[in-house]
Amino acid sequence: MNTRFYNAKILTLADHHKFEITEGELWVKGNTICYIGDGTDTADVCKEGEVLVWDREIDACGNLLMPGFKNAHTHTAMTFLRSYADDLPLQDWLNQQVFPREGQLTEDDVYWLNILGIMEYLTSGITSNFDMYFFPPVDAKASADTGFRTVQTSGLNNFGGTVELMEENYHIVNEMSDLTSFIVGFHAEYTTSKELMEGVAALAQKLKSPVWLHNSETKLEVAECKERWGMTPTQLTDSLGMYEYGGGGYHCVWFEEPDFEIFKKRHLTAVTNPASNLKLASGICPTKRFVDEGIAMAIGTDGPASNNCLDMFREMFLTSALAKVREMDAECVGADEILYMATAGGAHAMQLEDCDRLAVGKKADIVMIDLNQPNMQPENNIVKNLVYSGSKQNVKMTMINGKVLYEDNHFEIGFDPKEIYQRANAIIGRMK
Amino acid sequence: MNTRFYNAKILTLADHHKFEITEGELWVKGNTICYIGDGTDTADVCKEGEVLVWDREIDACGNLLMPGFKNAHTHTAMTFLRSYADDLPLQDWLNQQVFPREGQLTEDDVYWLNILGIMEYLTSGITSNFDMYFFPPVDAKASADTGFRTVQTSGLNNFGGTVELMEENYHIVNEMSDLTSFIVGFHAEYTTSKELMEGVAALAQKLKSPVWLHNSETKLEVAECKERWGMTPTQLTDSLGMYEYGGGGYHCVWFEEPDFEIFKKRHLTAVTNPASNLKLASGICPTKRFVDEGIAMAIGTDGPASNNCLDMFREMFLTSALAKVREMDAECVGADEILYMATAGGAHAMQLEDCDRLAVGKKADIVMIDLNQPNMQPENNIVKNLVYSGSKQNVKMTMINGKVLYEDNHFEIGFDPKEIYQRANAIIGRMK
Repeated sequence: MNTRFYNAKILTLADHHKFEITEGELWVKGNTICYIGDGTDTADVCKEGEVLVWDREIDACGNLLMPGFKNAHTHTAMTFLRSYADDLPLQDWLNQQVFPREGQLTEDDVYWLNILGIMEYLTSGITSNFDMYFFPPVDAKASADTGFRTVQTSGLNNFGGTVELMEENYHIVNEMSDLTSFIVGFHAEYTTSKELMEGVAALAQKLKSPVWLHNSETKLEVAECKERWGMTPTQLTDSLGMYEYGGGGYHCVWFEEPDFEIFKKRHLTAVTNPASNLKLASGICPTKRFVDEGIAMAIGTDGPASNNCLDMFREMFLTSALAKVREMDAECVGADEILYMATAGGAHAMQLEDCDRLAVGKKADIVMIDLNQPNMQPENNIVKNLVYSGSKQNVKMTMINGKVLYEDNHFEIGFDPKEIYQRANAIIGRMK
Repeated sequence: MNTRFYNAKILTLADHHKFEITEGELWVKGNTICYIGDGTDTADVCKEGEVLVWDREIDACGNLLMPGFKNAHTHTAMTFLRSYADDLPLQDWLNQQVFPREGQLTEDDVYWLNILGIMEYLTSGITSNFDMYFFPPVDAKASADTGFRTVQTSGLNNFGGTVELMEENYHIVNEMSDLTSFIVGFHAEYTTSKELMEGVAALAQKLKSPVWLHNSETKLEVAECKERWGMTPTQLTDSLGMYEYGGGGYHCVWFEEPDFEIFKKRHLTAVTNPASNLKLASGICPTKRFVDEGIAMAIGTDGPASNNCLDMFREMFLTSALAKVREMDAECVGADEILYMATAGGAHAMQLEDCDRLAVGKKADIVMIDLNQPNMQPENNIVKNLVYSGSKQNVKMTMINGKVLYEDNHFEIGFDPKEIYQRANAIIGRMK
């Protein structure tokens, strides 16, 4: 598929954390961006003798092309538990509602529940997810089959999985498709024995992989870890040799001084999950401190059972607005910084450097934002409009790897939405 | 216009703060709901000899009909300053960016900027606003002309307006249209002299009107008021005889013990504006305390310059999620409570009791929610889906006073959206 976008506004990265917008054309050859410009300097795009034949030429009508959002932490297949048992204390929610039903999930269930989540990602301009759930090869297959890009990690803990199985999944998923990859991870310190964590560290070193985990999500988690080990989760995992090849933590709410130092020294990324942290009453991430320290950040929705939606617009607003109220400083963590986290920051965390921004040679993971909507007007500052007033309603098109998967409220993923909804309702219906 | 909805799910109010959903038909005769049921017991709908002729019969396809959202605090015409000067300290933002540009607004500007805001309301299923801005008769005319329902109040303060002008506007707006009304109000204690406030209280008593104001939005505001008067803003305004006929406060973040008592005693309503309070680093409203005390609540977006969007879905999620994190209690302030605030609670605050819910005899201010979207599936709990994962994208239709103003992304308000966008850009362009 070769696609030419014209009459477009194009969001490119000026320097590290600052965006700029130009007007013109963006060309996609196969799965790769091959040209961005005003359409006059295209001589070098094709090799000598090569002719670019367009499968589609899309008039963007002055709308915005931007890099797809990277959802840097989620449990996609938890769609079946959306709005099933909210407004409960965390432990009751997990032990009485979530775990007993997750125990009944089959591989087939997880496949269909992933597709429901992928559909929701597409409506929010999300082009890849960093997913931790049961059956990573099944999760990955749902992505490959629909055309969605996924990075899987392991949810290994004392109650499920082995280091050997993770190694197997690492190879299966990394070799499955150019849309699927796998990075070493485990659930969290509070669910995982020291022996298992040592096994994870050894595997990461063997595979030269970063390591990811839920880290310092709740105050209790950190307090109990310190009681057990005399160290925070970050200190403990670092002491076990986890971060030789980098990685990072999901949530990162209750960080202590040494944790910031370790994240800086090891070049780790803090993924914030603001909606989930509010709704489960976990706390507010020290985002300004991470930014001030120069620690890399990315943004994730967490799973649909705790959020309950998979919408990067809501997460972007929250990441900025919660930083402001936490520090009582309306000036901190501005819109460009947030948009960077939600796109390039996520791509960096997920080792997707080749789809982190719109530039020649990068993969065509592109979203078209409808600016001709009241919430995007006037166009005083398009980046601020995206972060502070943007909505899923503005997502006109989502393209992944050069292929349009969502356009004008229609899905092009090879499945009938109604069938997916029926399957999701049947899966949770079976468990009631 | 007579409209028959069939194949609908219908959200009705079971008791005070609890919703239920039935399946069937909803009929609208003129501007009023005349029937809700399964379609078999319709004999009493028409007077003898009367025949109901349908202008439209709408197959809801199993989607949800719900009462429109009431946006209980906003400054609609501030659309021109959206994303114009964010990420600034509050005082710089107000004094250097907002006030000098507001000073340049003409009545004509305010008319067009209102229409832009009204369009955005419609996309979010908002059917009425409680608006405080310059030129209330102009703001009201924009509503009447587009078919939108508005309740205007005065932004009177030391720098603009008089009590006499407010009285004049009270009559003009209340008599303009059945879509427009006016309630007495003023800007805030910190911008208004005691003499003016005494004049407001006298006017409220003369007109038998409630009184509204910005109340305890920031910590500094309360501290300075106590320094000036030895009382909180709530104590001071109560001592001036403001609340003989009720009313309430916008924001209500920094409440002290006596304030809760006064709100209970006087049956006042606290309107929360969570997105604005975060973004301007004002604080987090003590929502759980209000709910526990039985104090009425409603939800507002505040103006588009401080939020920056006019979206009740975001505000609903925030109202619940911020209460949970503020109290570190995932159980508190659940979805039904929130949905009540956003609909009936707002209607109560705005004296719109006749459009507070879907019931026979109520005004037809109705929203159709598209449940056939991934973020609304599975249908474990539709109320929780609305509050925790709902989005503007789910708003399929917005009807006000029996007339469809927005449907499938198209506006039916008598104006071309492109013209409205051009005018808004021209207005702020003139001031740059």
